[in-house]
Amino acid sequence: MNPVLIEVLRGSAVESCHAGALAIVDASGAVHTALGDVDRPVFPRSAVKLLQALPLVASGAADTFQLTDEELSLACASHSGEPAHVATAAGVLARLGLDASALECGTQWPGREPVLRAMVARGEVATPLHNNCSGKHSGFVCVACAMARNAGAEPAAFARGYVAADHPVMREVSAALSATTGVDVERAPRGIDGCSIPTFALPLRALALAFARAGTGQGLSDANARAARRLRQAAARAPFMVGGTDRFDTRVMQAFGERLFCKIGAEGVYCAALPELGLGVALKIDDGAARAAEAAMAAVAQELLRDEGALLRGYSHLPLRNWNGLDVGSLRPTAALQALGHARP
Amino acid sequence: MNPVLIEVLRGSAVESCHAGALAIVDASGAVHTALGDVDRPVFPRSAVKLLQALPLVASGAADTFQLTDEELSLACASHSGEPAHVATAAGVLARLGLDASALECGTQWPGREPVLRAMVARGEVATPLHNNCSGKHSGFVCVACAMARNAGAEPAAFARGYVAADHPVMREVSAALSATTGVDVERAPRGIDGCSIPTFALPLRALALAFARAGTGQGLSDANARAARRLRQAAARAPFMVGGTDRFDTRVMQAFGERLFCKIGAEGVYCAALPELGLGVALKIDDGAARAAEAAMAAVAQELLRDEGALLRGYSHLPLRNWNGLDVGSLRPTAALQALGHARP
Repeated sequence: MNPVLIEVLRGSAVESCHAGALAIVDASGAVHTALGDVDRPVFPRSAVKLLQALPLVASGAADTFQLTDEELSLACASHSGEPAHVATAAGVLARLGLDASALECGTQWPGREPVLRAMVARGEVATPLHNNCSGKHSGFVCVACAMARNAGAEPAAFARGYVAADHPVMREVSAALSATTGVDVERAPRGIDGCSIPTFALPLRALALAFARAGTGQGLSDANARAARRLRQAAARAPFMVGGTDRFDTRVMQAFGERLFCKIGAEGVYCAALPELGLGVALKIDDGAARAAEAAMAAVAQELLRDEGALLRGYSHLPLRNWNGLDVGSLRPTAALQALGHARP
Repeated sequence: MNPVLIEVLRGSAVESCHAGALAIVDASGAVHTALGDVDRPVFPRSAVKLLQALPLVASGAADTFQLTDEELSLACASHSGEPAHVATAAGVLARLGLDASALECGTQWPGREPVLRAMVARGEVATPLHNNCSGKHSGFVCVACAMARNAGAEPAAFARGYVAADHPVMREVSAALSATTGVDVERAPRGIDGCSIPTFALPLRALALAFARAGTGQGLSDANARAARRLRQAAARAPFMVGGTDRFDTRVMQAFGERLFCKIGAEGVYCAALPELGLGVALKIDDGAARAAEAAMAAVAQELLRDEGALLRGYSHLPLRNWNGLDVGSLRPTAALQALGHARP
């Protein structure tokens, strides 16, 4: 069993708890911290969107279509479907001569209540552009269009079916995952992600290595090293695009800029790169809870960056308020999460 | 550590898992099944609303104000804030000469996306009547008004502050919890619930006992036995009021009527009474996940009722679909949950 990483307090009693595993690794693969089973494969879901976006930059497609910081940041995003996110994804597609019908991620209403309310109040209905993955998918369509251009093919026809594992675009995405994690994803357990592309279960140790590499460039091809740097810079310059209003990733990257690239994935996954320390982080909450993944990521960032500010502590010790706004409890990292670097395997 | 009760599959791999504890007890306190630690106190939250509503009926307040099945069912509910729920709670208050300002549960927008969208599309804003606890709180206000009538006090003034632990209404509610669970709740760990009333952490074993008693009347005062029966009947006759459109408790009680009273609580709790078997059920998912609590409750009901229908199996093995409607995985009860009655301590 993995150790409990986050406890949920109500009053002074522990109401719920979240077990999980955490790997912190440097770009040589040396383990800084391993808590729980870091060798069991876990589906990283959207936590690896930066890695999945590497072909967009490394292939030259981002330059061909002159993608901006906002557009590249959105390619790494699980955004909240706010107007700026929707407009940015639509802008990329328009530049390709396409529209939302090119996206194969499915239609999703925003999951955050205020965003959803605002959207309905404006009389809007959900489209694939509102899907939290629409930026990543717009990036995939860019890659497809660049490939089509090189092949003399019709872009829309070439792009069609890009979510399939054997489409040329997805082959490039899988190759980037293999190259950065050091694991042949073709041999990994496979599932279908929320947005219909393949997701591969990989050890946290390998995911942390990939983010150490993405943060430093070490162990990557020149093209992937440059692409990772470009994407991290874009996220730091346009952090709203990675998440949205009041979202953890947005707020943390607004505060820390290029010191910390972090990205949540569904089912309790977090990945991060800390370039100044040469470290990559990957964690998974066993039960899939996002609240615990965010709190654990915040606690890790506090420790590694020796940060004593209110922002990260506000997430690692998130207060819980009830419908009357009363403080009724909080999240709390366990002692296990405060011994980073001392918990080598 | 408690055993894993529910696994979450993506493709054929386990993506996430939910540990928890389960007690099934008869009205004498004899243990039918104990999985995990059933003696550790857990906050039952809204899973004990039926017990919290006992004073409403046992005191005579429900008769005084001629509450209907719908209104009594709503008093046991965590409803979705749909128009019928809101109108029913408002109707109770109107009969008392009061309105939504008498409710101290706080304002809550409906948590379910289609309900929220429909509400915003109608141009409505959230009020305390939309709070999932507004029926329970309307019941508390009824008890207060009946008390005020007996005391010759002004009802609204008497009711004010009814959420406080030392208010006469909440004293009655606490006494009902102590009487049914056999635990003096005044000595239990205490927290503040989402709707601002006290919540007491109690062992699953004691919670299951309370529901075995509520299902059979054994071990209860005549007044509480009659009240429990009346509330169970009301829920069976008006199951929409307990939850709402597509809600587990509503659908299951629509299907099984008085054979099964079940009620979810926040943070992964479920309580149930199975009168024909003389059993009470209480379970808690350690991490607080509602999806796992529902799946576990469905698996328990399938086993105990020897049910082979599609409804409960659809919840215990809930298919997971992505934004394109593709089947990407499912929930699955573990072997531990299929050995009920064989897992006595």
